[in-house]
This record gives sequence, C-alpha cells and structure tokens, in this order.
Amino acid sequence: MKQFLDKDFLLETETAKDLYHNHASVMPIIDYHCHLDPKMIADNHRFKSITELWLGGDHYKWRAMRSNGVDEYYITGAASDWEKFEKWAETLPYCYRNPLYHWTHLELKTAFGINKRLNPETAKEIFDECNRQLRENPDMTARGLMKKYNVEVVCTTDDPVDSLDYHKQLADEGFEIKVLPTWRPDKAMAVENPVAFKEYVEKLERVSGIKISDFQEFLQALKIRHDFFHLRGCRLSDHGLSEFYAEDFTEEEITEIFNKVISGDDLDENEIRKFKSKMLHEFGKMDYEKGWTQQFHYGTIRNANTKMLKQLGPDAGFDSIGEWNTALSCAKFLDRLNSEDKLAKTIIYNLNPSANEMVATMIGNFQEGPVAGKIQFGSGWWFNDQLDGMTRQINALSQLGLLSRFVGMLTDSRSFLSYPRHEYFRRNLCNIVGNDIENGLIPFEGYEKERVYSMIEDICYNNAKEYFSF
Amino acid sequence: MKQFLDKDFLLETETAKDLYHNHASVMPIIDYHCHLDPKMIADNHRFKSITELWLGGDHYKWRAMRSNGVDEYYITGAASDWEKFEKWAETLPYCYRNPLYHWTHLELKTAFGINKRLNPETAKEIFDECNRQLRENPDMTARGLMKKYNVEVVCTTDDPVDSLDYHKQLADEGFEIKVLPTWRPDKAMAVENPVAFKEYVEKLERVSGIKISDFQEFLQALKIRHDFFHLRGCRLSDHGLSEFYAEDFTEEEITEIFNKVISGDDLDENEIRKFKSKMLHEFGKMDYEKGWTQQFHYGTIRNANTKMLKQLGPDAGFDSIGEWNTALSCAKFLDRLNSEDKLAKTIIYNLNPSANEMVATMIGNFQEGPVAGKIQFGSGWWFNDQLDGMTRQINALSQLGLLSRFVGMLTDSRSFLSYPRHEYFRRNLCNIVGNDIENGLIPFEGYEKERVYSMIEDICYNNAKEYFSF
Amino acid sequence: MKQFLDKDFLLETETAKDLYHNHASVMPIIDYHCHLDPKMIADNHRFKSITELWLGGDHYKWRAMRSNGVDEYYITGAASDWEKFEKWAETLPYCYRNPLYHWTHLELKTAFGINKRLNPETAKEIFDECNRQLRENPDMTARGLMKKYNVEVVCTTDDPVDSLDYHKQLADEGFEIKVLPTWRPDKAMAVENPVAFKEYVEKLERVSGIKISDFQEFLQALKIRHDFFHLRGCRLSDHGLSEFYAEDFTEEEITEIFNKVISGDDLDENEIRKFKSKMLHEFGKMDYEKGWTQQFHYGTIRNANTKMLKQLGPDAGFDSIGEWNTALSCAKFLDRLNSEDKLAKTIIYNLNPSANEMVATMIGNFQEGPVAGKIQFGSGWWFNDQLDGMTRQINALSQLGLLSRFVGMLTDSRSFLSYPRHEYFRRNLCNIVGNDIENGLIPFEGYEKERVYSMIEDICYNNAKEYFSF
Repeated sequence: MKQFLDKDFLLETETAKDLYHNHASVMPIIDYHCHLDPKMIADNHRFKSITELWLGGDHYKWRAMRSNGVDEYYITGAASDWEKFEKWAETLPYCYRNPLYHWTHLELKTAFGINKRLNPETAKEIFDECNRQLRENPDMTARGLMKKYNVEVVCTTDDPVDSLDYHKQLADEGFEIKVLPTWRPDKAMAVENPVAFKEYVEKLERVSGIKISDFQEFLQALKIRHDFFHLRGCRLSDHGLSEFYAEDFTEEEITEIFNKVISGDDLDENEIRKFKSKMLHEFGKMDYEKGWTQQFHYGTIRNANTKMLKQLGPDAGFDSIGEWNTALSCAKFLDRLNSEDKLAKTIIYNLNPSANEMVATMIGNFQEGPVAGKIQFGSGWWFNDQLDGMTRQINALSQLGLLSRFVGMLTDSRSFLSYPRHEYFRRNLCNIVGNDIENGLIPFEGYEKERVYSMIEDICYNNAKEYFSF
Repeated sequence: MKQFLDKDFLLETETAKDLYHNHASVMPIIDYHCHLDPKMIADNHRFKSITELWLGGDHYKWRAMRSNGVDEYYITGAASDWEKFEKWAETLPYCYRNPLYHWTHLELKTAFGINKRLNPETAKEIFDECNRQLRENPDMTARGLMKKYNVEVVCTTDDPVDSLDYHKQLADEGFEIKVLPTWRPDKAMAVENPVAFKEYVEKLERVSGIKISDFQEFLQALKIRHDFFHLRGCRLSDHGLSEFYAEDFTEEEITEIFNKVISGDDLDENEIRKFKSKMLHEFGKMDYEKGWTQQFHYGTIRNANTKMLKQLGPDAGFDSIGEWNTALSCAKFLDRLNSEDKLAKTIIYNLNPSANEMVATMIGNFQEGPVAGKIQFGSGWWFNDQLDGMTRQINALSQLGLLSRFVGMLTDSRSFLSYPRHEYFRRNLCNIVGNDIENGLIPFEGYEKERVYSMIEDICYNNAKEYFSF
Repeated sequence: MKQFLDKDFLLETETAKDLYHNHASVMPIIDYHCHLDPKMIADNHRFKSITELWLGGDHYKWRAMRSNGVDEYYITGAASDWEKFEKWAETLPYCYRNPLYHWTHLELKTAFGINKRLNPETAKEIFDECNRQLRENPDMTARGLMKKYNVEVVCTTDDPVDSLDYHKQLADEGFEIKVLPTWRPDKAMAVENPVAFKEYVEKLERVSGIKISDFQEFLQALKIRHDFFHLRGCRLSDHGLSEFYAEDFTEEEITEIFNKVISGDDLDENEIRKFKSKMLHEFGKMDYEKGWTQQFHYGTIRNANTKMLKQLGPDAGFDSIGEWNTALSCAKFLDRLNSEDKLAKTIIYNLNPSANEMVATMIGNFQEGPVAGKIQFGSGWWFNDQLDGMTRQINALSQLGLLSRFVGMLTDSRSFLSYPRHEYFRRNLCNIVGNDIENGLIPFEGYEKERVYSMIEDICYNNAKEYFSF
C-alpha cells in the first residue's frame, strides 16, 4: 500500500517518478490566470491567521462545509477564527476523494512543513502551529509564499477601469516576480442591467478621459484603457461567459442598442445578444492587434442561490455548471475574426466537461502557423480542477489535438496557498504519460525519450513562456 | 486470473475486501425507492415459476432479448414459461459486459444457491431447480426474499389516488420490514392530455372527498392526500420528468389554465409548462412542510416505440435517454423554493450521464445545515445502474461534492430478486475506495482509517437511515 | 516496461493476447464504410511517393501539422514531396498520445516493414525506403495494399448521380475483393442552397432519364437510381447530418417546398427542416424495401473555417464536433418508420461522445427480431476513432446493449493505408475483454470460454458478414 501523500504521491510508475522529479518539479511556475489581489502583493500582506489564509475567501471550502451541514455562522458568519477552523477540521475528514482533501494536505506540507492529517484531534495543534509560523516566520507573507513556490509570473484579473496602481508599484519596485494585469471587461458587456451599465460607462469616462455619448466613444474609451493595460504589461484578456455570442448585427443596430441602454431602457434578449456579439468581436480585434491572448471561460451558472446572494454577494460558493449548446456560436465567433485575419491567440475553458471533445476539436478548426498551438483548450477549470477533470481534459486534448503544445496549468485562485495545484497537475500529468510509456504506448529510447522529457518540461513551463511572451 | 463471481467479486485489493466483507456487506438494506407491488408483499406472493419472477415484468431482460433477435412471442407473447426461459438462457451468453450477466448470476447464487452459469446447456437444469425451490421452499416468497436480503425498509411508488390499503395492512400486521408509500403525483401534472387529466381529477375527488371545481380545490384535494400519505408513513415524493419546469406564472394564469384543461380544451406548450411549474412548486412546498424528501428522476424519453406501446402499454422496454438543457430550469426551480425557505431535502437523478457534473455541482448551490448532504445527487439511475454508470456517479459526486454524505443505493426495481444490486453497488464502492487507499490517495491509519470504515457504513446504510428518518 | 508497438501492442494480459492473436487477428476485414476512390482501385493506382499516399488527402495529419505551427505551404501548398514529408516527420514526435502516432507507426510496420520511429533524424531514410518500395514493389498498389490486409469487402461512398462505372468494371473483372457502392444522397436534401440543389436535380434528370418537374418525379428519379445502386451491389445507405430531422409535414407542403426551391427561391428554416424530414423518411422506406442498412453520421460542424474553405474546399481538416439536442428527433424519425413497418436495419454514429449513452439506449427502443442487433450503435467515428473514443463506445454499448451483436469496425477513410485501424480496434477490443476476464467479470471456462472466442470473432467479422449480407 502506497503511503498517503508521500514523495511519490500520484506517481504510480518508475517512469512517472523520473518524469516528475527530474523534469516537472524543477520548472518554475507561470501562473497566467489567477484572482490574487494585487494590493496584497504590493503590501506584502501578512495573514493574521490560517483561518484568514484558508477560509477567508475560499468558496470551495465553504461549499464543502455547507454540504457537511455546518451552519453559515461558522462559514461566513461571526464565529471566531478558531471556531471556523474547527468546523473546517471537522468537515475535512468527510472530504475523501474530493480535491480539497489533497490540496489541504499539500498546502500544510509544502507551506508549513506539517505532515499530520487535519482532523478534529489534530485541529488545535495545527491551528496553533500555522498561526505561529504566520506570525513569526518572515517569509510567510504574500510575497514570501509566491517565492517559496518558485513563481515567475502571475497574471491577476482586472477590470478595464482598474487603476493598476499596484501593478505599477510592483514593477517600479522591481519585484522579482512579474505581477501582470489581465483585461477582463465583463462589465463592459453587461447591458442586461442598464443601471449598472450606465454607472460603469461613467467610471470608464473618468478613467479614460473620454466623454462617452455614443457607441464609438465607448469603444474609443475602451481602446484607451486597452492601450494602458498593455503599457502595464498586460498580455491577456479574459471573458466570463455563459455561452458564446456570435449574432449577426449591423453598426446601426449597435449604435441604437447602445443609445437605448445608456438612456436607461431595458434591452430585449435579442438586443443583448447582438451587443455582446459586437463587444466580443471588438475585444477580439483589440487583442489581435496587440499580440495578446484572449481567454474564454464559459458555461457557468452564477449566483444560483438568490437568498445567499443577497446575504453574501457573488463568489461565495453558489455557482455551478450549466448546459448550453454553444458550439455553433463558438465556431462562428472564431470564424468571423479569422475571416478578417484578426484572430488572436485564444484559450477556451469549458465548465461542463461533457463539452471537452467539442472544444478539443473546435480549436483544431483555427490552428494556423507560425504559432504552435495557437488556439488552446484550457486546463480543467474551476470544478474540473481535480484529478478526474484534469485527466479528462488532458485525454481529450491528447487524442484530439496536440498535448505537446499545451500551455498547461494555472491556479485561477484567490489564495496565496494554491500553488500546490501546479504540483498536483504536474504529478498527474507525469503519471498519465508514465503509464502510457510503461504500457508501450509511447516509445522511450533515444530521440523519443528526449522528446518525452521535453514535452513534460514544455507543458509545465516552456510552452507558456513562449506562447505568452510576457 | 480471478474466478468469475467468487466471494471477492469486483474487489481488486485487500483493502477493498476488508471494506466490503467487514463493513459494507453486514449493513441492512434501506431500499428507499422501488416499484414493488405492495399487494404482492401483503399477500406474501408465491411465484409460480422462475419465469414469472424473472421475466414477468423485467423490461431490462426484454430489451436484451429483442436486441438478440428473439421474437416477441417468446418475450411478452403466449410462449410457455419454459420457452421464454429457454430464450433468455440463449440470450444471456450474449450479454457479456452488460449488468444483466452479473445480476442474473448474483441472483441465482444468492437467492437459489446456484453457482452454475446459465446457458443453453444448463437452462433446463436451472429452470427445474429454481422452480422446485419456488414451489417447495417456504421462504421463497415475496416476504421471504425481502428477509433473506436483510431489508429493513422499502419505499414503493404510489399515486396520490392510491388507497394504500396494502401498506396499512402490512403496518397493522406488524410486518417486520417497513413498507412505506412514496408520493408520485405525475398524473396530477399531466395536463398535456385533458381527457386523462379530467378522469384523474374525478378520481381525486372521490378519494379526497373534495368537490373540485377550481384550481384551489384541486390543490386542497391533493393536500388532503398528502396528509393521508404522511399518515401511512410516507416520507418521500418522486417526480418523473423529462426536464425541470420553472416558468414564471401568475395565480390568475394557473386558475385559467386549470379551468381550460378541466373543460376538455387542449393547452398550448406554454400553458403546459406554466402549469407543471406551478405544480412542482406546490408539491415542493408540501414536502418541505412535512419534512419529506423530494426526488426528481429526469431525462427520460418514454414510450419511444408507438407500435409496441399500442401492443404492450408503457414500461415494456421502449424508453431511453433524452437530451435537454435543463440546468437553468433546475436552478430556478430550486432557487424559488429556497428563496421562500421552503426547499425540502432533495434528491436529483439524471438519466443522461453527460449531466453528472452539472448535477453534482447544482446540488452544491443549495446545501445548507443542519442537514448534512441536504441536496443529494442520486445514485446511477436506470440505464446507469451498472458498473460504469455507478462509478461515474460516484466519481462525479466525490470530486465535486461529499461522497461521505451520500445516501447511497436503491433498486428502483419491480422485482423481489433485485436486492443483489445493493451488493453490486457496495462491492463497486468498496473497490473504488480501496483502490484510492492502496494508491495513497486516502490515508488509512488511526483516525482516518476509522473514518473510512464509517464512510463505507454510512453510504451503505447510516446516511439513508438518518436522512430519511422513516 | 512494455516495448512500444511490439507484437503485443495494447494487449495487457495473457488472455488479451490469446484473444487477439488466435481469434481477432486471423479474421478478414469487411470495411463496410470508407471513402476510397473507386477509380484508384479500378486503375490499381500506384503511388508516386509516401507523401502522396500519406499526406495527399489526410486531413487528420494536416490538422496536426497546423496545430504544430507548420505553414500551410508545407501542408497543402506548393512544397515538394520531401519538404512536406519532412514537416510531417517534425510534427509527429509532438503527437504523443494522439492516434496519429500509433497509426503512422502501425502503417510503417505493417505496410513497409519499417520498425523505426519517424522523427527528423530518421525522416530521410524512411522517406527514401518507402518511396523505393512504392516504386519497386509490384504489390504496393491500391489493390495490393487491400490484399495485403486481408480485405474481403469495401463499401465506398457514392452520390446517387454517380455512374458507378468503376464498381462495374471491378465486378466485371472479377476482382477478388468486393468493391461495393454506398448510397449517400446528402445533396438530394441540401435545399438550403437552391442554386446547387437545382443543378443537382438537373444531374439527376440526366442520369435517371426522368424529366423532373415536381416532387413526385424527383422521388421517382431517386428510386430509379436506388434500384441501379442495388443492381451494382449496394446494400448500404449513408447520411451525413448535423442533427436528425423528424418534423411533421403534409404531402402538399412538400410539393410546395419543392416547387419553391426548384424555382430558385430561398426556403426558410422551417421549410428546410420539413423537406429534410420528408427525404430522410423516403430514403428510409427505400432502404427498408430493399433490405439495405441505413447509416446516420450526425453531429458535425463542417467547414467551420470560411477562410480555408475558400482556399482549399471542403474536407480539408476544418470540421469539428457540434452540440445538438437531437434525441427526440432521432426517436421520432425511427418511430415513424417503425410505425409503418418500414424501419430498415440502421446504424447510428454520433460525433459528440457525450451522446454515447443516449445513442446506446436509443437503439434499444427499436430492436426487433429476427435480425439480432437490428439497430446498431456505430463504432467510434472520426474524431472518436482512437483509444479513448473506441473504448467509450464499446463500454456504452456493452453496458446498455449487447456488445456481442456489434458489427464492429470500419475505416471511414480515404487512404489505402488505413487498414491498421482495424488492427488497432481489434487489439483494443481484445484488451478490454481480456481485462474483464482476468478481473473475474466474464467467466472463461467451457461453454462460456467458447462464447468469448466467438464474440471476438463475431465482432471482428462474422456479425458484419451476416448483418449486411453483401
């Protein structure tokens, strides 16, 4: 019986161990998509307790606690740090087979050097020890944790109206880890809520210095911000979508829709879709023109629980996987840009894994040199960021595309402790490839053996480095 | 080579054997959803032959025989018991890799003590031996079989207009196995057929003693029956759906729709959906108020073969898996009840396994203490009640929720011989967990080892016992 | 560690080796669906280079090269045979885990006796050796390759207006391998393009000798061609669809729609769907009346890349998997024919593997003796023609239907070198069944052992032979 979480965790074969220990584990981390707060990095935030670090904003853990019957008081309520931690320690032994069980112990091990299992019997001891380290160890800070995990680049997620002051501060300081912004203009498309959209336009006016009285000025203001993001090192955009939008529209229609929404009138479904289609297209062109990579995270039902949305706001663990037939729209969206020779490097992340094969073949429709793997199938996202989900993404991409050209893992996380997910991904990747080699499915001598080694290193690091050119 | 169906059937590791033999196999069965005929239990039905017991109503076997080219005469036609059995014995060796092959031999072994393989060469001998036992053994009856398999509770499936006389008789008698009804009001929503609906309303008038002239009286009559079911021990409802319904509606609209359908007029698609949305919502509130659990079995195309429907009626093996994008409606349906603080404990069963991940995350949107696992992802249902299907449900639930809180297996069967499906499920569960332990994915010492043992026992029995509170 | 591509490639157990070497590998090939050019067979085409044979029309390889960043010049452009081959040799080592890696080396090994790995270092040597053999070896021709792989029958894919002259020539010659046409009337339904449809109708007039002035004459002309195809040995039809069409329609509506389109007017979506529904129904009846098998390949997004469609035309590697909810239409289409007792033997191939379980249960709705496995779930198609895809199809069919009655593999290929895909399928099948046996899931003694052997032989050859009755 293999020991839990030993040095060969997830590595079932000798080949897998070779691949991981000698090739994967030594590569730096390029975390090209995350939700870290740049202010916390700029401030080199020090955490007041393991509860803040672990349970302050981690809706994965919150969901698990709710599923375990824990009262909201101990999750997002007024309970003390210790009470919350204690409830988490009670919940964790009910998380067997859930990635939280592995992540938690990988984090305890790699960040705190704690090799005990967290459960009600060990909770107090682990709570105290983690808090002691957070208090006493000068490296247990936002920046210290990033360095500990050999991070080279992180890309945060930012709104076009964000000042990016913290990014600038970090760059000016010469912080050794690149902290770059990502252009996430979801609110610039959210015309389903005219009031919020109007407020957003006003913010955009202020930060861009452009008076926005029609759609063209709106677009111009966004372009100014796009330029500004580029100046701050941004090389990626990101879009959070339920589905792809690729309706037909005329410039006149868009002008009218913009005028209508900006004057506070509700749009109908058709108008909303046309506007989003236009915006996605325009954003795509901006990205292409600057050599950026555009990312699409689609397939989410957000804020499904109205009662808890009112209580806690968004991103509190009440989102789930949706169902949309969006393949045709996705194809049409990409094709429209491609037909204009304006299709940027693109990464598509699907939340519903039953679309894996669709996405893995969709990207093949628009591959074009000289960029290898120009269109990417993003790593198992959010709910799929676990062994089965990552494996299914890797298998679909492998069988239907080129695994070798994959830009690999990202944390997509709000936590400074989530870098072990790269380790988790790398171990799993090496295990999958190792099994194939041991089973005679991949040759492992001479030229081919070196190619295997390179493939592992490429997916862990080199591909992302080359693809994004930060 | 492992022997077929030996005592360690499906158990690949020593750990799996420990889990199964010492923890899973010893737990009683709570079969909280089945389609047994309560009359047969009340009468302690004695089967005239293995053909009646096995082939009398088992549309799984019928489908297999049709797929094997057997004429309908030998399936549901006038052929003799022996002729039908013989055709089944000819078909079975063509069922390798189909669960019928395993179920059949598990049933022969555990009910009849027969360890031979059924095939044309052994057919006569097995036919005779089974029939001899059914004739001579006083325990080979409906009740005897339930006791043999250590069944503690069964929940049948009943219409609101059913008298539940047999349930009462069994309770009055003090039959040691609880036989409880389940509220299945599909016909009270089936307004797509005004004639049948009107007849149903008339039945409801008779059993409820309420004159139904408008929607409020209709609802009142149903509530009276709901009360009555509760009195008879019912703690579960069940709904057979293609998709979820969560349209917006007004009370006035529902009143008008009811008046229209009750006067014999056809409803349009929109009206039908509004009415079903209203009824699902009302049923949900009734269940919440009594502390019941509501079940939703969705995703079925029923009676796809019109020719055979005319010949044999429903439930004859002509149903299949459908395709609907119903995630948004499901979320809206649950959210509406939740927003009114009326969301009962809920189990969702999807027929199309490509929705596994959607469902496994959907339940997470509405988890809320103090009930652990308040919203459940039901075990692999119907066509998915086999090794791959059960494994995929277990894996999706594990990775996206809390396997530990799963209420586990049910037979969903019309047969008194189907309890080995619980064994099948338990063996598979222990094998999956055993593999994880042996691979170092779950710790297996001290506190954590005891938790593994408890988890297995909980999923097999304790969770259902606590969750349903029969 | 197992050697790459040794004689036991893909065979993990001793039982799998027994099954493959003694039962699967010895069976002839019935390639009942392919896209070979009958002219090349009739001419016994000799290939001018391995580049022509491998890269002349293989859009799988083209896609891989594009994904690897290769310029179109080296894919479909004016580059020399050697330059194109060199780029392929550079790409191939990036194809680990993609079926192309296995197919390529299986083809080198079984056709050319080359056991080296293709990579930039071996490219020139392998290029020269393949070309030498193609030049010098009298058996390295279209026909020679078919004989080498023990092919017994191939069914090409042909339009109703095709002359079938080459099929006739081959039959008249007495070529030992049956080369039969397949009725693929996609263009006779393609009313979305009135201009192309009108041209097609004119072609049909010429080849049928029927003046087509209304829908009845159109249908009559098609029936004449259907008769002619039958005369030329055709026993299969095939339809390439996005989704199934089963709208309600009246004869009057169809007459009007035909008149409208033939006079050059665009049809609306509703009219197009009605017309396609009618045509599929009529084709189904024709097939039933002649005892043919109808095939449906559905779920494709074709020609997603408009820029490349203009440059290269269709079938150039710009197609992908789509998303449609077509289960209800599929059921209705089959039911309509079945209700008229006109449902022919049918094979359904789905491109999106998330529909596997839907299809595997859909076929069960219409199974009917005396033909065993009358309705078939087609082998993993196109993008799914790889280890995962074939395995998922086999597992879904096994668990939800009768694997034993499966008509097995086909190449669906344009290449004379694609027969090793049958080997690939057979090895995988034997491995899957072998694992089940070794794990005690299938008995393997006496009667049951013989049945396993027969099952393997049946799926590889006997089932297709019996089912199609060529």
